[in-house]
Amino acid sequence: MPTVESVYAAATVKRLLVGPPRHRGELGETLLSKRLALPIFASDPLSSVAYATEAVLKVLTLGGLAFLYLTPWIALGVVVLLSVVVISYRQVVRAYPQGGGSYEVVTDNLGRTAGMVVAASLMVDYVMTVAVSVAAGVDNLVSAVPSLYGARVVLSVGCVAVLAAVNLRGVRESGKAFAAPTYVFVASILAMIAVGAIRTVGGHPPVAESATYGVRAEHLGLTGFALVFLALQGFSSGCTALTGVEAISNGVPAFKPPKARNAARTLTAMGLIAITMFAGITWLAMVARVHVAADTCDLVGFRGDCAVDPQLTVIAQLAASVFGGTSSPAFYLIQASTALVLVLAANTAFNGFPMLASILAQHELLPRQLRNRGDRLSFSNGILALATVAGLLLIGYRADVDNLLHLYILGVFTSFTLSQIGMVRHWNRELRQVTVAGVRTQVQVARVINAVGAALTGLVLVIVLVTKFTGGAYLVVIAVPVLVLAMRAVSRHYASVRAELVPTSHARLLPSRVNSVVLVTAINEPALRAIGYARATRPARLTALMVQEDPEATDALLEAWAQADLPIPLTVLDCPYRDITRPIVEYVDALRTENPRELVSVFMPEYVVAHWWQELLHNQSALRLKLRLRLLRGVMVTSVPYQLAGAPALAQTWVEPAAEPVTRPGPPVSESRPEVVVLGAHN
Amino acid sequence: MPTVESVYAAATVKRLLVGPPRHRGELGETLLSKRLALPIFASDPLSSVAYATEAVLKVLTLGGLAFLYLTPWIALGVVVLLSVVVISYRQVVRAYPQGGGSYEVVTDNLGRTAGMVVAASLMVDYVMTVAVSVAAGVDNLVSAVPSLYGARVVLSVGCVAVLAAVNLRGVRESGKAFAAPTYVFVASILAMIAVGAIRTVGGHPPVAESATYGVRAEHLGLTGFALVFLALQGFSSGCTALTGVEAISNGVPAFKPPKARNAARTLTAMGLIAITMFAGITWLAMVARVHVAADTCDLVGFRGDCAVDPQLTVIAQLAASVFGGTSSPAFYLIQASTALVLVLAANTAFNGFPMLASILAQHELLPRQLRNRGDRLSFSNGILALATVAGLLLIGYRADVDNLLHLYILGVFTSFTLSQIGMVRHWNRELRQVTVAGVRTQVQVARVINAVGAALTGLVLVIVLVTKFTGGAYLVVIAVPVLVLAMRAVSRHYASVRAELVPTSHARLLPSRVNSVVLVTAINEPALRAIGYARATRPARLTALMVQEDPEATDALLEAWAQADLPIPLTVLDCPYRDITRPIVEYVDALRTENPRELVSVFMPEYVVAHWWQELLHNQSALRLKLRLRLLRGVMVTSVPYQLAGAPALAQTWVEPAAEPVTRPGPPVSESRPEVVVLGAHN
Repeated sequence: MPTVESVYAAATVKRLLVGPPRHRGELGETLLSKRLALPIFASDPLSSVAYATEAVLKVLTLGGLAFLYLTPWIALGVVVLLSVVVISYRQVVRAYPQGGGSYEVVTDNLGRTAGMVVAASLMVDYVMTVAVSVAAGVDNLVSAVPSLYGARVVLSVGCVAVLAAVNLRGVRESGKAFAAPTYVFVASILAMIAVGAIRTVGGHPPVAESATYGVRAEHLGLTGFALVFLALQGFSSGCTALTGVEAISNGVPAFKPPKARNAARTLTAMGLIAITMFAGITWLAMVARVHVAADTCDLVGFRGDCAVDPQLTVIAQLAASVFGGTSSPAFYLIQASTALVLVLAANTAFNGFPMLASILAQHELLPRQLRNRGDRLSFSNGILALATVAGLLLIGYRADVDNLLHLYILGVFTSFTLSQIGMVRHWNRELRQVTVAGVRTQVQVARVINAVGAALTGLVLVIVLVTKFTGGAYLVVIAVPVLVLAMRAVSRHYASVRAELVPTSHARLLPSRVNSVVLVTAINEPALRAIGYARATRPARLTALMVQEDPEATDALLEAWAQADLPIPLTVLDCPYRDITRPIVEYVDALRTENPRELVSVFMPEYVVAHWWQELLHNQSALRLKLRLRLLRGVMVTSVPYQLAGAPALAQTWVEPAAEPVTRPGPPVSESRPEVVVLGAHN
Repeated sequence: MPTVESVYAAATVKRLLVGPPRHRGELGETLLSKRLALPIFASDPLSSVAYATEAVLKVLTLGGLAFLYLTPWIALGVVVLLSVVVISYRQVVRAYPQGGGSYEVVTDNLGRTAGMVVAASLMVDYVMTVAVSVAAGVDNLVSAVPSLYGARVVLSVGCVAVLAAVNLRGVRESGKAFAAPTYVFVASILAMIAVGAIRTVGGHPPVAESATYGVRAEHLGLTGFALVFLALQGFSSGCTALTGVEAISNGVPAFKPPKARNAARTLTAMGLIAITMFAGITWLAMVARVHVAADTCDLVGFRGDCAVDPQLTVIAQLAASVFGGTSSPAFYLIQASTALVLVLAANTAFNGFPMLASILAQHELLPRQLRNRGDRLSFSNGILALATVAGLLLIGYRADVDNLLHLYILGVFTSFTLSQIGMVRHWNRELRQVTVAGVRTQVQVARVINAVGAALTGLVLVIVLVTKFTGGAYLVVIAVPVLVLAMRAVSRHYASVRAELVPTSHARLLPSRVNSVVLVTAINEPALRAIGYARATRPARLTALMVQEDPEATDALLEAWAQADLPIPLTVLDCPYRDITRPIVEYVDALRTENPRELVSVFMPEYVVAHWWQELLHNQSALRLKLRLRLLRGVMVTSVPYQLAGAPALAQTWVEPAAEPVTRPGPPVSESRPEVVVLGAHN
């Protein structure tokens, strides 16, 4: 058993990290205005432009520098897709203002199993969002401060820990902390694109340092299928720009009212900004002839040791070329805000994942602990679960963005596609009910939008699955069904328990009598206290029970017992095999079998010690014994604690002083008239 | 709470490893004849000759090959010391036939604190015996099979695990398993010495392959203090030959009667064999001009890659030179038996440590769990503790004998010295009582023997402390006081608890009434069962208690409660901070404060689930709640288990079928006439 000491220490650390508990009444205050919601929910899709262009270039470079001509076409495809998805999700937000996003939509329209698939995909995505964003943020930090290259994994895991701590403090505070960097990031990237454009128009286009680098492994002359596959691979990677779009639709309940309208507007604003930034960065990268490779060692002409020196990210190369080198203040501003916003983008997931988990727990698909808000009104268990898994992934993949991206995109498009199909069904149903012509037209338009969305995202899903499967997407193909099966098992368990727990008339029958047993090892205070307590419950029969480990000790106890003149008999069980659990449990079991209508109450004296290490010195067999006694029907186990000198007083165990007056005890028992007393409610 | 499933799985694995439980009555059978006791208790001192000579040579080589001329003088010193210690310990065995060895002697004669110092030293020694012997055994194995060089740490830890498993099965079986290798080792080493002697006399002395190797780092020209220090360092290392001598004196109770005489004779036999072997090996190493160095890379002329190829041990070099190369069957026999006996030497500690720990636990210096025999009649907890610490040391020191040796010798000589001083005091006391002249002379002789022993071992203790301190012995200088402080804390705790637990007349006062509280979350079967059980105990007052997390849920429950027509009132506590522990505990505390003469009994419904993962889905707050309720005086906590469908039946939880008939319940309560019933005893 953990000691009160350790519980108190843990609670103190928690208080230091997250602050004092917050009253239920403060919940309203944590709702988000549009101005705060944009950075919180949109930092993910906005920040993903920082690595989307780079991902496209890296894939095309695999074929050879000659294939970089495909870049604008791929970018165009991504922009079209992004527009379609944003427009589609506006419909979702309006149709489902209660939140739950894709999961809600799909469950509603395509059934529970499809809903679980979406839920599993979304959970995987949230985890990947944290891992990819943090890893990419650290990459941009390392571009500016190359000496940190060796500490990438530590930095990434540290970022995840800080994010978890901030989110455990509660959602509103995190919104404030994250607003400024997001806005600075958007402004500085747009400024960079503008300056680059002006210089280009003025005849002095920026030129990246890597424009002169070649790439070692050039496979020129791809044609036919190979060319198409390369283009599709590049497109799949570019689709990372779309990740996070669904976060807003999952988070509608966190918006200030009118929730749906505010969420839809935030979504549109986010879409427009994201498209502008992605298109601008890609265009600028073409102009400046940025060259990148998955492995620095593949870059011919790269100055420095490829095994040690980090490669500059695309954003860093652009910033350096536009603003005149890697030592200009503007370069540092761009890198700092990019790094910060990427790390904060992970915050999108820290908002979305716990809320989704809570909804899933309400639907009995995940353990109950994920359902409720912690004492800071945040969904603490969900936040901790997300941070743990993302941290492990970052360690496992050594914080490598390229490798993590393969796992990322598949889940995103699974939920996009199923959600759009669900919306089409939704509108079909609406159409059957609506008769007003004007509204019918609106619904029909909406249906077309979502149908186009479903077709496009479905197509992309297939492309991603084919082009990324061996690169790591197969892990997602395994993880999603495993999660679905787990949810099904949890759901089935809760359902069967609920069915079992329905009160039967049988349950009200009073057992006839209580047969009490007090476990003793010696005639000492705890034993006498347990005997006294047991006698106070006035059982029909009462015996002290002792297990004989050493026959000589028994003789001594028998003599002492006779002298002590105790008013109850002593039963001694022999235990030649030194496992005291079994004789006791079998004795109690036999007692039950012989008197099936009587209850057995087992009284166990327990020591309450002053310090954790003393716990090792006592109560060794109690746990094993209780574990077995719990299996017997009609048996209660009563712990009679004995507080040793120095055991903490109750008041010493609370971190906070009592927040409200101690509640008052209820009225005396009245067997005839049921009474309901509500104490301290609504205060 | 661990589930019954995991407990069952652990028990099954345990049964497979250690066999079925053994009846207390079998204990007599585990006593040892001299023939079995010699290999068990003497494998440590005998096997240490396998590395003692090597340790001396390595130290002298640090000064340069020229200083090998010191070897015979150092060996002579070690032999004299070994004889003195053996003779001294014969006195100990005779004077203290009840076992406990040095610890018993020192506590008896020099007091508790000195006893604790010896106990701590001995515990450190036992751990080091396991680590050093196993590491040296693996070194000899690697000498014969060099391809295993890279797996030394894994092999060492594996050996410790096997030893632990064998010892958990019980002491007699391990004696049998270990007798043959020890005798083969002694015979084959003596044969090697004999063959070497015959060849030398015949004019064809064996020549070691390393006789032609030089040593890179030669510091010739040491004189004065430096020379003395080198010789003393070599002597300190050679003293490893003495380790383990005290094991027999600790293990006297394991001998067949007459225990003391048998133990003394075994000690003498062991001493004679050890001296013969150590002297023989050292002489042979001089004849064959064996050259060794702490690091293979220091050997000039060594054939092979010093970073990868293991160096042959001294025993291996002698066997190769005497029996004609490293491919002769005799070479393999020597290496195999040496490796085996070294690994088995660790077994000495697996016999000694748990027995010492048991004695210390009986004296309340260590936790009670170490006191009793496990279900195989071995001291299982002591065995597990020893194996764990030794395994960690082997991993920490990468199974390097040279480094481990530094930690080893200090503790050994601490206990030797204190024990001999204690014996001198013992004889002084005897002398005061004895008046018969013949006996007086005997006692005076014994006193002289132990005084010489004390002086010599004390001198060596100082030498070891000075020459080995920086090499690692300082760790022992830290560990021993830490252990002593821990023992003192344990002892003080048990003593204060014992004083506290003395029954007072107050303890017999019966509390006036019981005030019961049933915790409920809904009107379901477990709640109704708990209410029914609580009512069966007929408390003076009874209320159901519910914590409101969500006011809407409360309203629903209040309505259902009214409809259910339950005969007890419902009290609802508000909980705006979502920690349900505090409102409940403070309610119960207030109930106690208001009615100080009444007990409070808190009934908690608990779910018993079918599978371990379902435990995650239930009973989340129960543990924290119990932890706090235990701190309140006059409060009992009663668990009312509710077995969900699929929860295991009691019979499914035992690995073995019931071994004896189920014991019978005791007679009914008789308030007037105390009764004592002993069931199933002595069967």
